[in-house]
Amino acid sequence: VTVDHPFDEAIALTRLDDGRLRGSTHPAWANMVGPFGGITAAACLHAVASETDCVGTPLALTVNFAAPVADGDYDLSVKPVRINRTNQHWTVELLQGGDVKTTASAIFATRRDSWSDAEAQPPHAPPPEDVPVAEESDFVTWLRNYEMRFVEGALSLDGDVHEQSTSTLWLRPVPVRPLDHAGLAAMCDVFFPRVFLRRGPVPAGTISLTTYFHATPAELADVAEGYLLGSARANRFSGGYSDQSATMWSRDGTLLATSHQIVYFKA
Amino acid sequence: VTVDHPFDEAIALTRLDDGRLRGSTHPAWANMVGPFGGITAAACLHAVASETDCVGTPLALTVNFAAPVADGDYDLSVKPVRINRTNQHWTVELLQGGDVKTTASAIFATRRDSWSDAEAQPPHAPPPEDVPVAEESDFVTWLRNYEMRFVEGALSLDGDVHEQSTSTLWLRPVPVRPLDHAGLAAMCDVFFPRVFLRRGPVPAGTISLTTYFHATPAELADVAEGYLLGSARANRFSGGYSDQSATMWSRDGTLLATSHQIVYFKA
Repeated sequence: VTVDHPFDEAIALTRLDDGRLRGSTHPAWANMVGPFGGITAAACLHAVASETDCVGTPLALTVNFAAPVADGDYDLSVKPVRINRTNQHWTVELLQGGDVKTTASAIFATRRDSWSDAEAQPPHAPPPEDVPVAEESDFVTWLRNYEMRFVEGALSLDGDVHEQSTSTLWLRPVPVRPLDHAGLAAMCDVFFPRVFLRRGPVPAGTISLTTYFHATPAELADVAEGYLLGSARANRFSGGYSDQSATMWSRDGTLLATSHQIVYFKA
Repeated sequence: VTVDHPFDEAIALTRLDDGRLRGSTHPAWANMVGPFGGITAAACLHAVASETDCVGTPLALTVNFAAPVADGDYDLSVKPVRINRTNQHWTVELLQGGDVKTTASAIFATRRDSWSDAEAQPPHAPPPEDVPVAEESDFVTWLRNYEMRFVEGALSLDGDVHEQSTSTLWLRPVPVRPLDHAGLAAMCDVFFPRVFLRRGPVPAGTISLTTYFHATPAELADVAEGYLLGSARANRFSGGYSDQSATMWSRDGTLLATSHQIVYFKA
C-alpha cells in the first residue's frame, strides 16, 4: 500500500499518550455532511487492526453514525471486549471534543479450513471494460475516489425516477490501490441511499452499517488492484427509513462481503 | 401482554440501585450452550425500552455474542450514546461476574409520514393452516416456545443434507402472545444456523446479529397473536463462518423486519 494514497491518508492514525488513536477528516472524502461513511467505517476497522493484541482478520463490523463528524481531528477509543481462542470482540468510539459521534463494534476471527459453498450468485454484468465509466459528478466530493461503471441504477441528478432501487456496478479506487479489508469496508458503503433512485436526491443518510467479511487475505490479493462488482437494493421504505443490502464480488465471482444498512430519508 | 407468559418471564428485568438492570436466564429458553440468542436480543431491546429517556420505537439492533451466557442472573448496563431529535443511539453490555458476555447497540427512532414502498416480496407459501406443524423436538429446549410450520427447509436431525439453505416457515409463540418489537426481535433469530441444512447439526452458533425493524406499532397490532412468515438463507460458507439473512412478514405480506447474522461452524 502506497502511504500517500488518499485512502491511506484518510485513515491514518496516530497513537496518543492516553492510548487513543487520533485521526483527521480528509477533504477528498467529504460527503454532503461530514465525511463519507465508508471512510469512517474503514478508519474504525483500521483502528482495531492497529491494536497490538489484535489477531486474525475482520469478520464483522457494525458502525453506528450517531452524529455528523465535523471537519478536523477526531479520536478513536478502541476497547477489547472479549478475546476468545478464535474470535476477538472489540468496540470503538469516535469522539470529537468529548462528544461521541460514532460507535462501532468489530469482530476479528481466525479462519480455519472448513466445508465451503456459496449460495448467493453474482449479478449478471458485462466485463467492466464494456461498461462506460460514470461521468465525474459534483454531487459529493468522495465519489471522485472511485471509478464506477454502472451496469444498472446509476445515480441521476436530473430527476429520473426508477421503478426499483437496484444498483449494480464495477468499481475500483482512483488511483488504484491493492484491495484490503479496510478498502473493502469503505467500498461496501458506496451505494448511495436507495431512495435517490426512487425519489431523486432527497435528504438521506446512513444511520447504521453492518458488514460481514468473507474475503480471505488470499482472495483480497487475487483481486489486487482490479475491479469489484457490487450490487445493492432496498427492501422497504417506510416512515422515513429504509434498509438496503449489498453484495461485493471479485471479478471471478467470489463473494467478498455482504453489507447491510439502515438509512433515514425525507421524501 | 400477559405477565406470566414465558417470553415475558424470560426478559423480565429489575432495576438495581446502581442503575443496572438485572435479568435471569429462563430454563424454557435454553439453547445447546446458554440461552437462545433471540431471547438475549429481546432482553437487550427490552432493557433500552425500559429507560425513562427512551422515546420512539426500535429501528436497529445489533447484538454481539462475545461469550456464552451462563445459567443464572445477569446484569444489563444500558447507556445513551446520543439523543438526537428523531434518533436515539444506545449501547448495552450484558455482564456476569464482571465479565462482558454480550454487547449490543440499539437505535430507536420516531417515524414520520413519508413516501413508502416495499421492494422485497414475501416468499410463496400456502396458508399456515395448510402446512403441518413441526413435531416437537428434543434438539434444543427453546424450540418448544414456538409453533413452526415449515414450508421449506425444516431442521432434520436424521442426516438429510439439502442442496441449499433456505428455510421458510409460519411461526407464532406457544402460548400465543401479541406481537411486539421484543417478540419480533427474538423471532428474527429462530433460523438455526443454515449449515445444519447443508451438513447436518454440526457445532455452530451466532456470533453477531443485526435486525432492522420496519414494523410500526399499528402493523404489530394488526398481526396481534397471528402467524408470521419468516424466510432465511445463507450467502456464503467459508473458513468456518457463514452469514445468513432473514425477512419476517405479516400474513398480509407486510415486511416487518430484516435480520442478518454471522455464524461460526465446524464442518
